[in-house]
Amino acid sequence: MKLTKLPLVAALSLLVLSSNAWAQSTKRLIDEVNPFIGTSNFGTTNPGAVVPNGLMSITPFNVSGSPELNKFDKDKRWWSTPYTADNKFFSGFSHVNLSGVGCPELGSIIVSASAGDLDVDYTHYGSAMSEEKAHPGYYSVQLNKHKIKAEVTATQRTAVSAFTFERGGKSNILVNLGLGLTNESGATVRFLNDSTIVGSKLMGTFCYAPQAVFNQYFAIRISRRAPASGYWKKQPPMEGVEAEWDKDQGKYKIYPTYRKEISGNDIGVWFSYDTKPGETIYVQTGVSFVSEENALLNLTTEQPKLDFAAVRRAAEDSWEKALRVVEVEGGTTDQRKIFYTALYHLLIHPNILQDVNGQYPMMGSLQTATTKHDRYTVYSLWDTYRNVHPLLSILYPRKQLAMVETMLDMYKEGGWLPKWELYGQETFTMEGDPSIIVINDTWQRGIRDFDTKLAYEAMLKGATTPGKDNKLRPDFDDYASRGYVPLREKFDNSVSHALEYYIADWNLSQFASAMGKKKDAQLFARRASGYKHYYDKETGLLRPILPDGKFLTPFHPTLGRDFEPNPGFHEGNSWNYSFYVPHDIRGLAKLMGGERKFVDKLQSVFDKENYDPANEPDIAYPYLFTYFPKEAWRTQRITSQLLSKYYRNEPSGIPGNDDTGAMSAWAIFSMLGFYPDCPGSMSYGLTTPTFDKVTIHLDTKYYKNPTLVIETRPVDEHTNRQRIYFDEFQIGNKLYKNTYRINHDELMNAGKITFFTKLVGGTPEITVD
Amino acid sequence: MKLTKLPLVAALSLLVLSSNAWAQSTKRLIDEVNPFIGTSNFGTTNPGAVVPNGLMSITPFNVSGSPELNKFDKDKRWWSTPYTADNKFFSGFSHVNLSGVGCPELGSIIVSASAGDLDVDYTHYGSAMSEEKAHPGYYSVQLNKHKIKAEVTATQRTAVSAFTFERGGKSNILVNLGLGLTNESGATVRFLNDSTIVGSKLMGTFCYAPQAVFNQYFAIRISRRAPASGYWKKQPPMEGVEAEWDKDQGKYKIYPTYRKEISGNDIGVWFSYDTKPGETIYVQTGVSFVSEENALLNLTTEQPKLDFAAVRRAAEDSWEKALRVVEVEGGTTDQRKIFYTALYHLLIHPNILQDVNGQYPMMGSLQTATTKHDRYTVYSLWDTYRNVHPLLSILYPRKQLAMVETMLDMYKEGGWLPKWELYGQETFTMEGDPSIIVINDTWQRGIRDFDTKLAYEAMLKGATTPGKDNKLRPDFDDYASRGYVPLREKFDNSVSHALEYYIADWNLSQFASAMGKKKDAQLFARRASGYKHYYDKETGLLRPILPDGKFLTPFHPTLGRDFEPNPGFHEGNSWNYSFYVPHDIRGLAKLMGGERKFVDKLQSVFDKENYDPANEPDIAYPYLFTYFPKEAWRTQRITSQLLSKYYRNEPSGIPGNDDTGAMSAWAIFSMLGFYPDCPGSMSYGLTTPTFDKVTIHLDTKYYKNPTLVIETRPVDEHTNRQRIYFDEFQIGNKLYKNTYRINHDELMNAGKITFFTKLVGGTPEITVD
Repeated sequence: MKLTKLPLVAALSLLVLSSNAWAQSTKRLIDEVNPFIGTSNFGTTNPGAVVPNGLMSITPFNVSGSPELNKFDKDKRWWSTPYTADNKFFSGFSHVNLSGVGCPELGSIIVSASAGDLDVDYTHYGSAMSEEKAHPGYYSVQLNKHKIKAEVTATQRTAVSAFTFERGGKSNILVNLGLGLTNESGATVRFLNDSTIVGSKLMGTFCYAPQAVFNQYFAIRISRRAPASGYWKKQPPMEGVEAEWDKDQGKYKIYPTYRKEISGNDIGVWFSYDTKPGETIYVQTGVSFVSEENALLNLTTEQPKLDFAAVRRAAEDSWEKALRVVEVEGGTTDQRKIFYTALYHLLIHPNILQDVNGQYPMMGSLQTATTKHDRYTVYSLWDTYRNVHPLLSILYPRKQLAMVETMLDMYKEGGWLPKWELYGQETFTMEGDPSIIVINDTWQRGIRDFDTKLAYEAMLKGATTPGKDNKLRPDFDDYASRGYVPLREKFDNSVSHALEYYIADWNLSQFASAMGKKKDAQLFARRASGYKHYYDKETGLLRPILPDGKFLTPFHPTLGRDFEPNPGFHEGNSWNYSFYVPHDIRGLAKLMGGERKFVDKLQSVFDKENYDPANEPDIAYPYLFTYFPKEAWRTQRITSQLLSKYYRNEPSGIPGNDDTGAMSAWAIFSMLGFYPDCPGSMSYGLTTPTFDKVTIHLDTKYYKNPTLVIETRPVDEHTNRQRIYFDEFQIGNKLYKNTYRINHDELMNAGKITFFTKLVGGTPEITVD
Repeated sequence: MKLTKLPLVAALSLLVLSSNAWAQSTKRLIDEVNPFIGTSNFGTTNPGAVVPNGLMSITPFNVSGSPELNKFDKDKRWWSTPYTADNKFFSGFSHVNLSGVGCPELGSIIVSASAGDLDVDYTHYGSAMSEEKAHPGYYSVQLNKHKIKAEVTATQRTAVSAFTFERGGKSNILVNLGLGLTNESGATVRFLNDSTIVGSKLMGTFCYAPQAVFNQYFAIRISRRAPASGYWKKQPPMEGVEAEWDKDQGKYKIYPTYRKEISGNDIGVWFSYDTKPGETIYVQTGVSFVSEENALLNLTTEQPKLDFAAVRRAAEDSWEKALRVVEVEGGTTDQRKIFYTALYHLLIHPNILQDVNGQYPMMGSLQTATTKHDRYTVYSLWDTYRNVHPLLSILYPRKQLAMVETMLDMYKEGGWLPKWELYGQETFTMEGDPSIIVINDTWQRGIRDFDTKLAYEAMLKGATTPGKDNKLRPDFDDYASRGYVPLREKFDNSVSHALEYYIADWNLSQFASAMGKKKDAQLFARRASGYKHYYDKETGLLRPILPDGKFLTPFHPTLGRDFEPNPGFHEGNSWNYSFYVPHDIRGLAKLMGGERKFVDKLQSVFDKENYDPANEPDIAYPYLFTYFPKEAWRTQRITSQLLSKYYRNEPSGIPGNDDTGAMSAWAIFSMLGFYPDCPGSMSYGLTTPTFDKVTIHLDTKYYKNPTLVIETRPVDEHTNRQRIYFDEFQIGNKLYKNTYRINHDELMNAGKITFFTKLVGGTPEITVD
């Protein structure tokens, strides 16, 4: 996914380790989460309140309105998050936000408070912010200008904000429907009664996909009836004599008495009070993507009464329960925070979409349907097929099942499996046919209680529909007839497209086999080997092919770093893609001249800074050394280095966009010691685990053993240095030597796996300094 | 009411008379209406389709978008009408329009059609217009650019447009919700199904009264399902890099698939077709000021099926029936057109507000209530109390009764009688306490079946509430304590305010007497004589008084012509107001030094061009001579001159803003031969009627005789010149000599009144050349 990187410190420093073990048994795991991780360095995560996979998220919005207090402004550059730790000008809490994405969307319905006379211009009522606290399901901040403490918590579909007016006196609640992260515009709102408003705002220009629009409905209830309330609207400017007559033109017009619908590009609702010192006013907000009625129903169902503390407690409990699926012992405070925050970020998206009555907007059509399983949305599948869904299948298989069921429902509703789905709309962001991979991967892991016949039909549609009718594979004809996609336009990402089709078709081949469709399996397996067309002996890399069958010349393999456009590749250069044949690493190695040449070339990616730790095409590269046992120490060294360098307990502690959890999933797998470098294949590359002991509680509906324990001795007692290498591990009574890959079933059924670690690795043996 | 005048030709030319009598018996009266009268010279009437007092009016909108084809642009100057005969750039048909007002409002929901590729920018799809035809309840125009014939007709609450695509091929229907005459902004709309949309647009900054806002709801049904349809929205402009990424920024974005609510400042809906040559597509539109549901209910009730011809026929029949209340014989073609068009304009406002189910928005509150009688809206009472309501009481007493009942309901709902009410909102435009006058006048005329107790209570509220709580009389305290309103701010219109209070209180005194409230009657009669405070012996005129009791110095009695601001007077100068004491003309004459001085001074108003025929304060001046029988020939001469000069069968044929019928009512009364120069008093000034014979069909619920016939011989057979003078008239067997005023009951019960006309009048006898 698109991101813009801050320059990163290249130096690799040793971890500062805590000296004694951590007794985690009585401590709450939610206390190990630092929601500020990822809120700088373009991580684009949010510190606000959300429950696991909740539709509602409420987060501070601080990316507009003050060049003085803000380092970044949403309108001055590519910007995709409502909050950054780099900024200090608070405009309110936005309701429903995307976490870890690279394109601006949502981040609207912005509720705030102010003290003093009513002023509805957010550049005026916005305030310097301080004393931020964030905890799963809870966030608070001090609004310095107004001496207001602002706190928020959330349920699945609702939020509640508490504004405490420390000084009392003139006080205002402000609901801003004009400001927002989305580049769409226009809202409508009306008073349902004195204390309740309902309305909707248009969203959806994600990644500047102009047609993936949808409406966010909301219902907002104020805890105290306001003596004065009304709307505001920025009036269009007038010119000449008209401008003299209309005192509101070009300004925020205040409507103190009008109560029916108001609509416009930049509108809002205000409530004014005379508060007592220390008085708290609460704002309860329900949202829906179906209707105003459902937004209100969600609100009255999930918050039948006003009880901020109870909502917060429930939110915390839901996180505690979700996180406790993995219990770790040992590691440093920072490592635990990094780990549990990554797990927290894994559980943001996809999030549920259905209302409390089961209704949701159907894929594409915007018609309403009712679901029996959780209906999910926000499928950033190009990112998440690689590791998020495999990890969900391991830790939360029932969620993963509902996600697959949702994908099949989307096919039934919209005619296609999703690619980058957002609130019922296909944004067609990124490339490939990723749903195939997710569904096969899920099935291969033993989560099979979905409609496999329908799934196969759906997969075949993307894999076989010719011509322009193929919405998922726009270059299907070329791909099917030639076995590759030629470069037909300068920046058509043709090689990236084809590489995604190969891994998708390899998965489809696996699934076809499982379904007993031998001929299909052969066809798709054959297609999956088409990557060889791109192999250029001259450079030893994958290289774009022109329509006449010749390689693109000139060819600059390093062109394309940092999202620089380059022919044939999307968000990367040839180095970032040339090893992306996860289903045939041995075949690729052979093509590249054998193991030695392959390994040297792969190592050079890291040595010559052609590795991008913040984008998906190459994130499994570190694990590819495990295919060659003698070289597996490189995996162990590199993952240790990457974890240490890029994953930190601080706002900039994610290497770039979290990509709806893909970066976090990389960290989780890498800290646990195994990685699904080829999704759909049940083989993991292994690396040295981070913690002394990890207990994964497995769902016995899908896994034989209730737990998988991973034991390690990662810290050397004498030197206090990290033992980042291993050559041996043990399962039961069986000792594995020089084995660096393991099968899924074997691992899941192990009960316990013990890694024997050491300070040195490789030949000649080396250490990390 | 505010208007801006075009320079008027000063010359007075004789009427060109048709040589033979007109047999009107078989001809339809609707054919005598020319809806283009008043559509230039700031008459601000509309040529479009409307039924008598209908909520719906649909009219061509041609006041924006083309400096080349339009002489006037709504945004370049004070402009208050959706249409002018001076312009030729058609942007569509606006639904619900104000007729004859001086401030911009409504004129929105603009439906049009285009040929060729879809272009939603009205400056592009707008077209030169030609071949206009207007007839009561029907209007058609040729859209030259697109070779489309566009026709409209209306029911009470709905309209239907017919667009005939002469060439066929690519064809579009466009519903523009951004463009409009109103200075408010913002609309919302959604597809109910493929062929039906519903939504609302905010209205209400009438006369730049910022808070008198209200929503206009609409439901629009297209006769043919469109193969392609969707929304558009003008996207807010972006700057810098964002502007490069978002191809829609600052432009009209097209939404071809999205179907749920869309909201914004400048939005619209389009339907695209491939039509056959000559194919007609119909657009049926219902409106409501209560809800979308009611707009749809109005549509499905009043147009259960699509039948343009039937709707047109019904509209014409309703006009024919309404106009046939007065049947004229004789007169020129132009005179008949002027007369029946004035009668047509009399029946535009107030118009009904309630939906087919009786629901309407309550006064001020925007809550919904249900009415049993017709609920009226658009009360321009400062204009209409003088002659519109007296005329309605004579010709359409049941309508007038419902209008009074509505005013009393407004008092019950909003706490105050109306002043300038617009769609349930009090705009507080102009001054005075005009409802008192309307209600008393109605009662005095014998229309008494309303709640007089409530009426009296309501009247007293404005007349007795002290301080700032008095919403109708903001300067009540001064007025009550001093007997006049001193000038406290430069342009506070203080004298105009007080003059309005005097005539209101004189009416209240009459009503109090009728209610048996003697003491009250005395109090208000005393107040009504307070005008004497303003009489300045030095200038012989009414003159502003400063808070210290002294007259304003310097004082420029002629300052204030043509709406030039001037201290103490509103929309006029001291000359326009100094005779405005209609309830005590004899007292005023005494003050001014007796009959001779009074008459000379009054005559000088006309001679020195201090008379404004296009605004209300002085429009009864011509009739004041009738108080002095020897001078009544002046009335006859002046009304003849004014009718001839300012009322013409052409677009500029109303002297200025029609003021929701006040100018038209002046013409009707003047052509009939009598005028209510003091509303509330049942005494008329007489002048020479225009037609050979007029038969007024009276409502026998209120009037003893079913008809009143007015016979005249206005044309001299020998010279073919108009006999504009009379000194004698006859009722039954009684001949009245040198009598120029008549009592209401006497006239209404006359059965027949015959005027004996002559070519010369006055002493010495004079003629008009």
